[in-house]
Amino acid sequence: MEIKVQHSKMRSEFRRILIKYGFTSEKADKCADIFALNSLEGVYSHGVNRFHRFVSNIIDGYIIPDAEPALIHGTGSLEQWDGNLGPGPLNASFAADRAIELANNNGIGLIAMANTNHWMRGGTYGWQAAGKGFVFIGWTNTEANMPAWGAKDPRLGNNPLVFALPFDNKAIVLDFAMSQFSYGKMELYQMEGKQLPFPGGFNKAGKLTTDPHGILETRRTLPVGYWKGAGLSLILDILATVLSGGFSTGEITARKVEYGLSQVFIAINMKSLYNYPEVDKTIHRIISSFKESEPVDNKSEIRYPGENIIKTTTENLHNGIPVNAVIWKKILSL
Amino acid sequence: MEIKVQHSKMRSEFRRILIKYGFTSEKADKCADIFALNSLEGVYSHGVNRFHRFVSNIIDGYIIPDAEPALIHGTGSLEQWDGNLGPGPLNASFAADRAIELANNNGIGLIAMANTNHWMRGGTYGWQAAGKGFVFIGWTNTEANMPAWGAKDPRLGNNPLVFALPFDNKAIVLDFAMSQFSYGKMELYQMEGKQLPFPGGFNKAGKLTTDPHGILETRRTLPVGYWKGAGLSLILDILATVLSGGFSTGEITARKVEYGLSQVFIAINMKSLYNYPEVDKTIHRIISSFKESEPVDNKSEIRYPGENIIKTTTENLHNGIPVNAVIWKKILSL
Repeated sequence: MEIKVQHSKMRSEFRRILIKYGFTSEKADKCADIFALNSLEGVYSHGVNRFHRFVSNIIDGYIIPDAEPALIHGTGSLEQWDGNLGPGPLNASFAADRAIELANNNGIGLIAMANTNHWMRGGTYGWQAAGKGFVFIGWTNTEANMPAWGAKDPRLGNNPLVFALPFDNKAIVLDFAMSQFSYGKMELYQMEGKQLPFPGGFNKAGKLTTDPHGILETRRTLPVGYWKGAGLSLILDILATVLSGGFSTGEITARKVEYGLSQVFIAINMKSLYNYPEVDKTIHRIISSFKESEPVDNKSEIRYPGENIIKTTTENLHNGIPVNAVIWKKILSL
Repeated sequence: MEIKVQHSKMRSEFRRILIKYGFTSEKADKCADIFALNSLEGVYSHGVNRFHRFVSNIIDGYIIPDAEPALIHGTGSLEQWDGNLGPGPLNASFAADRAIELANNNGIGLIAMANTNHWMRGGTYGWQAAGKGFVFIGWTNTEANMPAWGAKDPRLGNNPLVFALPFDNKAIVLDFAMSQFSYGKMELYQMEGKQLPFPGGFNKAGKLTTDPHGILETRRTLPVGYWKGAGLSLILDILATVLSGGFSTGEITARKVEYGLSQVFIAINMKSLYNYPEVDKTIHRIISSFKESEPVDNKSEIRYPGENIIKTTTENLHNGIPVNAVIWKKILSL
């Protein structure tokens, strides 16, 4: 059963629980903000629906509530930080802000962070940077959950990649995993007895299929763009690992629990461009032309990445955030 | 009919022709090197097979042989350049080197270039940077050749994106377009009466299909990862346009001939990392684990992006570069 929870109520419950599990008041505020905002903006899988697991990871010692990121090494516009296993959303938000500071001084800045934790929704940091007038490019590695191209066993992460830029006092934000569909999404389709809208992986017979059951059985999820997304996943893992001096997908996977990730945060200062006064107008022109596309049918909407979020936020602010009643009860009991 | 042309012969023919059409000896050298190397390494579509069209564009005035890129504006690690419609491969090679210089000073450097031309094979600049010990991330916009997600008419470019990094005295290089298959590839499959190995677009009935004819009819090519690649294409175009102050896919398309493109070149200095002495060993460890994947069958090889190039190069150096006889005759007549 689905219930609706007001954003402010959700936020204050998250805050209460985080303080109970060792967060300072200030850190609980920031972290509750991120979890509640992810939920408000419709990314439930990395908001309210993941909060319980986040707390479990704190209890089990994989996430250290009061750990602070530490600078290991810096040269000009590039810095390497150790996340010291702090809360992923706090570390990521800090790293994005630090990349912004470097970009503010030099046009572009890169922060690589080792030993950090799941950042939940990568788009969060894209919105954060775009809101301050910066382009954001960032990615994380993950545990292995996708096979190499031509392989059966998962050795690649889905390593989400984020591109974001300011637009129209809001932002254009693309936040995408290297697997075509997440396990969560495929399980949902299976539960509802539905086929995926497009092939999402290979079944036991080695055939590309839209049947979630067949894919969940083999765990041969499809990389975006087939061999292309598989190659990109490998490179994103190598770069996150090497630039941060942290752990790779293979090393993270060997530990059985997903913690101690490697992440990259790049910010670019729009205000440093000679054409900055024209930038928003230019993007408007590109988006207008894009929007003039001829739709396939009268049901299709031509949307830019992140466009929907405004509508979802408005709805969820008004009606409350939809949550599974069992999940919410579990959270309240924490 | 296919013939074989020795690399040195191909290079010297390209050089002769470029000088004839207004290149200085030094520029002809560099440009012939790039076209011949792209062919040697097996990327014929953006080497020998495209050379004739490159010369046509020079004759028609879209590419200006002696144009030099000019610095418009710079702040620290970020510079905006005007390509002045110079030869795309020379401008791109210059921009990659300049990004390397900035990264050498600051850890990371970004060059955005307006009014440049088709860079042929983006991987060229990835190999160039990786060969000097730098990570490379770069992309270009193109004319429109792919519809937005949910649309019929092409308003997005296939906007190739390159990720490269040094590895084992060679490199890992991923160079991929946002469309699943290029028009050239689909035409080849059609000519040979074959189906694509995976769905590559939509047919007249609006169904995803492996039939190249059906896709060439609608020109509804499939973005990599469906809506994800479509979104990424849009963002890469916006970023290339805005960061360089140049023209967008829409503006380039309106001119009917593809010229005056916008490109981005990011370099990251591996040597600036505190863990640099360990970097190659780390990448070896990741690649070894990747290579230990269980293959789907005994025909499948688990390869990292760019791995094949070493083998192709060796073969083509030994046997000569395969070229269609008509295409080669056309080049010789220039």
